[in-house]
Amino acid sequence: MSNWSPRDPSSIGVAFLGAGRMGQVHVRNMASIPNARTIGGADPFAANAEKGRDLARAKRASTDPVEAIHDPEVEVVVISTPTDTHARLIETALRAGKAVWSEKPIAQDLAETQRVVDLWRELHLPVQRGLSRRIDPAYRRAKELIASGELGRIEQFRALSRDTNPPPLEFLLSCGGAFLDMSVHDLDLARFLVGEVEEVHAWASVLFDERFAKADDWDTSVIMMKFRNGALGVVETARHSTWGYDIRTEVAGAVGKVIVDGGQKTPATYLRNVAAEGDLFGDFADRFEVAYRRELEVFFENLGAGRPVGPGPDDALETLRLAVAGTRSWRENRPVRLDDVTG
Amino acid sequence: MSNWSPRDPSSIGVAFLGAGRMGQVHVRNMASIPNARTIGGADPFAANAEKGRDLARAKRASTDPVEAIHDPEVEVVVISTPTDTHARLIETALRAGKAVWSEKPIAQDLAETQRVVDLWRELHLPVQRGLSRRIDPAYRRAKELIASGELGRIEQFRALSRDTNPPPLEFLLSCGGAFLDMSVHDLDLARFLVGEVEEVHAWASVLFDERFAKADDWDTSVIMMKFRNGALGVVETARHSTWGYDIRTEVAGAVGKVIVDGGQKTPATYLRNVAAEGDLFGDFADRFEVAYRRELEVFFENLGAGRPVGPGPDDALETLRLAVAGTRSWRENRPVRLDDVTG
Amino acid sequence: MSNWSPRDPSSIGVAFLGAGRMGQVHVRNMASIPNARTIGGADPFAANAEKGRDLARAKRASTDPVEAIHDPEVEVVVISTPTDTHARLIETALRAGKAVWSEKPIAQDLAETQRVVDLWRELHLPVQRGLSRRIDPAYRRAKELIASGELGRIEQFRALSRDTNPPPLEFLLSCGGAFLDMSVHDLDLARFLVGEVEEVHAWASVLFDERFAKADDWDTSVIMMKFRNGALGVVETARHSTWGYDIRTEVAGAVGKVIVDGGQKTPATYLRNVAAEGDLFGDFADRFEVAYRRELEVFFENLGAGRPVGPGPDDALETLRLAVAGTRSWRENRPVRLDDVTG
Amino acid sequence: MSNWSPRDPSSIGVAFLGAGRMGQVHVRNMASIPNARTIGGADPFAANAEKGRDLARAKRASTDPVEAIHDPEVEVVVISTPTDTHARLIETALRAGKAVWSEKPIAQDLAETQRVVDLWRELHLPVQRGLSRRIDPAYRRAKELIASGELGRIEQFRALSRDTNPPPLEFLLSCGGAFLDMSVHDLDLARFLVGEVEEVHAWASVLFDERFAKADDWDTSVIMMKFRNGALGVVETARHSTWGYDIRTEVAGAVGKVIVDGGQKTPATYLRNVAAEGDLFGDFADRFEVAYRRELEVFFENLGAGRPVGPGPDDALETLRLAVAGTRSWRENRPVRLDDVTG
Repeated sequence: MSNWSPRDPSSIGVAFLGAGRMGQVHVRNMASIPNARTIGGADPFAANAEKGRDLARAKRASTDPVEAIHDPEVEVVVISTPTDTHARLIETALRAGKAVWSEKPIAQDLAETQRVVDLWRELHLPVQRGLSRRIDPAYRRAKELIASGELGRIEQFRALSRDTNPPPLEFLLSCGGAFLDMSVHDLDLARFLVGEVEEVHAWASVLFDERFAKADDWDTSVIMMKFRNGALGVVETARHSTWGYDIRTEVAGAVGKVIVDGGQKTPATYLRNVAAEGDLFGDFADRFEVAYRRELEVFFENLGAGRPVGPGPDDALETLRLAVAGTRSWRENRPVRLDDVTG
Repeated sequence: MSNWSPRDPSSIGVAFLGAGRMGQVHVRNMASIPNARTIGGADPFAANAEKGRDLARAKRASTDPVEAIHDPEVEVVVISTPTDTHARLIETALRAGKAVWSEKPIAQDLAETQRVVDLWRELHLPVQRGLSRRIDPAYRRAKELIASGELGRIEQFRALSRDTNPPPLEFLLSCGGAFLDMSVHDLDLARFLVGEVEEVHAWASVLFDERFAKADDWDTSVIMMKFRNGALGVVETARHSTWGYDIRTEVAGAVGKVIVDGGQKTPATYLRNVAAEGDLFGDFADRFEVAYRRELEVFFENLGAGRPVGPGPDDALETLRLAVAGTRSWRENRPVRLDDVTG
Repeated sequence: MSNWSPRDPSSIGVAFLGAGRMGQVHVRNMASIPNARTIGGADPFAANAEKGRDLARAKRASTDPVEAIHDPEVEVVVISTPTDTHARLIETALRAGKAVWSEKPIAQDLAETQRVVDLWRELHLPVQRGLSRRIDPAYRRAKELIASGELGRIEQFRALSRDTNPPPLEFLLSCGGAFLDMSVHDLDLARFLVGEVEEVHAWASVLFDERFAKADDWDTSVIMMKFRNGALGVVETARHSTWGYDIRTEVAGAVGKVIVDGGQKTPATYLRNVAAEGDLFGDFADRFEVAYRRELEVFFENLGAGRPVGPGPDDALETLRLAVAGTRSWRENRPVRLDDVTG
Repeated sequence: MSNWSPRDPSSIGVAFLGAGRMGQVHVRNMASIPNARTIGGADPFAANAEKGRDLARAKRASTDPVEAIHDPEVEVVVISTPTDTHARLIETALRAGKAVWSEKPIAQDLAETQRVVDLWRELHLPVQRGLSRRIDPAYRRAKELIASGELGRIEQFRALSRDTNPPPLEFLLSCGGAFLDMSVHDLDLARFLVGEVEEVHAWASVLFDERFAKADDWDTSVIMMKFRNGALGVVETARHSTWGYDIRTEVAGAVGKVIVDGGQKTPATYLRNVAAEGDLFGDFADRFEVAYRRELEVFFENLGAGRPVGPGPDDALETLRLAVAGTRSWRENRPVRLDDVTG
């Protein structure tokens, strides 16, 4: 089925691409994975490349990702570079016959994503996108309960995310709007937990930070969804919160309900003067630390065992389509059917 | 300002209209209110009327509400009769110069509600609707936090209600649809806590009980709202739940957030085999027991002190308009602006 | 079995003794009880007596409790007077053939309590002590779970109580020490939920308020208990808390556990700057408001139905014995067996 | 101050001793630590030794711990062997001039522990005991709040631990009794969070598993403590639980309180039929997974930076003294002062 198999399943050769903040996290996590052996890697900044090599106890590192990809000892490429380089690097790696793990998204554009999907379908090589929520143990438990019928027929999906702090303006100008950049995580969960969406209607506002208006973006939004299976859903998003990183998802069915809330970083609570301070997560990197370890571990477990990996590029296309539908609904002030979002 | 004042503020004469299940609750609660003295009352079933008289330690009771209203010792009428009699009884009481406390709604129809509003405006008599959530201490605390600026500018409103069990079919056929019958409580809270709504879009489904389809009604719904102040909101509703009476409201602002959840009936929790059983409320009557006492207590406190009472009929008109807008949006499959809901 | 029966079970004649703060609460609550009809009452302060009469819609009131007890229309006496008058008033009422509901304790002294028990055993009249925790719905649920075997064999009991604010010094000087005045509520729960105690060991400290040392009392304590059925337990007590009224009880058995925590006054929570403010109870009067209504309601239900009432004076003796054992253990710095606390 | 310094602080040579279940966890965790370079290791079972070598990407491994200790490239020894070998291996490593990280305890015997303390004081080499709770982020937060005065003067300490399942009989026979084997973790926290203890009184029972009686052990216990600073405390312990791994610690002071409860493994909750199933931890290995990574990371950070490491052997002596005091109190049925536990 796949045109890829490891030379030695207990010791698979890896190159890291990108050794910035998240890249270093991935490199350290791979050092603990029994069957991942980091050979080399690349980062345009030589100091980062060297830092990655050191953390990985790897042989070599460079500033040229193409060189790292073509290293004959390298069988798998792990991509943690800026978003606008993902599609090109995935394509280069696939053309070189390598398996790929890549940070999400593949691209912010349906056409470019489609191009990667087409190549991936042609070459039959393993590609896994880094969807930390899908691998996070809490959301996996939700998925298992739903899949095993413990909730009965699904009736309602609701998700709300509030980031602690809004991003810098330069980021806003290139992020494609908050539905693609932020709501997309909850939209992906909606598809993961409930199924495909038939129609959306979205409203958005600039309520607290005028920089969003300058970027033709918004800081607060709501998306209403009809799923193909009849369930109804909402995704609410806001770009700030004084009460910590606030993400909650809930799926209700005919006989049961599952809630995943933001959780506490640790089970410590401080009480004083009728107020309680939980030990909260600061942001997504804090919340999903365990998922970052687990997502690569599962990827290498499956590669080593010859099992399929995923979610792959095709799935990325559908989640992107949903975020694009939300954006169009808001910009054109009308409900949008997913079938009409074709490019 | 009001054309009504009590003969003796420390002992105000009352007639109860309706002594069924909720009527008896109100009669017993009034017995504990220092300045409410129940003189008489009426219920079409003589046994109920007599039961009410007995619980109230009242002098007399009959099967004729008009007689009870016109009793010269009666200064206030407390109405707990079926919904379709509210408007007429309120009008009769007002024309007889009595103050009125009435179960909600005034009517399920904008025109009939408007007629009561007009009479009330003409006669300047005290009328208070029984909105248990608005008087419930939890929602009042939310209101106070919002009013005092503790949340900053309001950004998001979300409410979800799931009843434990769906109502009987005969009830469904006359209830006006779930937006008027059930979502209306959360729509009223939205207005109470955040302010007036500019536009709604609603979707609904029959997902678990085909009787709803037969009644041209639905069992599951979502309403998306734009408030006039820019805030965004959602109201989700479902007609059943295996996990107890599930109502939750959340208002998030620029600097703070307030959550009112369904709560536990008592703070007892039973744990066994990794499952925890809280002591949950069974339904609204269970959850709002304290509010039922408090709403009449506050009414008589204010009557006794010569302070205005409320919420009055005009406010009922606006909440009804919102529920009608949701219903039209769903039936006509389009967003609806509140300004266009004029009759 | 009882030498008392009501003339008319649907309308039992009552006199209130004491119409101070708690007395007025009881009088108002009785006004809502279908089969309690307050005839009269007494309070040494004429204004209180009159206030009680008015709230009860009663015929008469005086400053003389003995007169109120002997009123021939009065069948039941409800005592809310200061602690040191309870025993004498109960005895007077019993000798007059009346049923009695009395605030706890009967007395702070084993001998005086024993004297009331002896009289009660001789006369066979209904006496119920106002033990709000035993009638509180949360603790009742705990009791039912335990009694029905849902916890299996009981292994551990733990209780902790922290009052919001310490009492005034003059109160401390007459309260008999914190084991009799405050820990006694948890000691009574231990007996109610788990059973009789075989041995205790208690330690206490003055940690935050030197007034306690002056009163030969303490502000912080712990009592360790061996129950006769083999279970082990602890009761921790402290006289202040900046984080609200903090009372929690937990009983663990071989197959299940039940927790009763202090709960929130309402299910409203305010979040801001990583701190959450629940809507907490301020003190016991706040927490047990529902129990105060319920305990008299149950008393009259049982009186009306000819069922036994309780807990009675004999039970008071055993709880007092436990508190006295704790006090001796601490004062004499040694474990104390309950069998040795005979007077 | 220390007679040890690393050749290269960014790459410190390590040998693992023991590569069983926990040993392999430590070996994998060290692979991610930037400045720990595992050279070799030993396990009496050759397959384990080889597995450890492989996970560590290490050069060599053997079945002889003494050989591994004396490897000239090895600067630090990480001990995960059975308890009764700890003291001897620590002594061998110290005599060879190596720094040591060792699983707890040093020994179950005061004399043997004292011997290690004496050697450690003589040689001035870094020794850190693996106390996962002390490094766990939740307990560290509690410690920081207490140390910074956020609780005010400490008044009460309470801890309760219930394991999910009791240990096998053969383990019971050699574990030294539940105070040394299980309560010791909470006793250590008591010292860590509140300070040294002056006196204890302990009671224990066999309530659910007769095997404990056969092992001259117990399954349920309570220890009451007087701290030297006047605070009072209790430690409750039980050897089984049907409701998951149940450990909770609470420290209350004059102005604040901190609670560390068992937490949920993930923030997912499943509700059905009025019961909620949280996603609970199964046992200590599950609960403290993050602490196992963190404790070695901190050890190597401090070794690399030339900072002191700890807690060291002297501290082990005091915690052991407390557990021995509890055991004696129970066996001799009397309160025991810590000053009297000298050997």
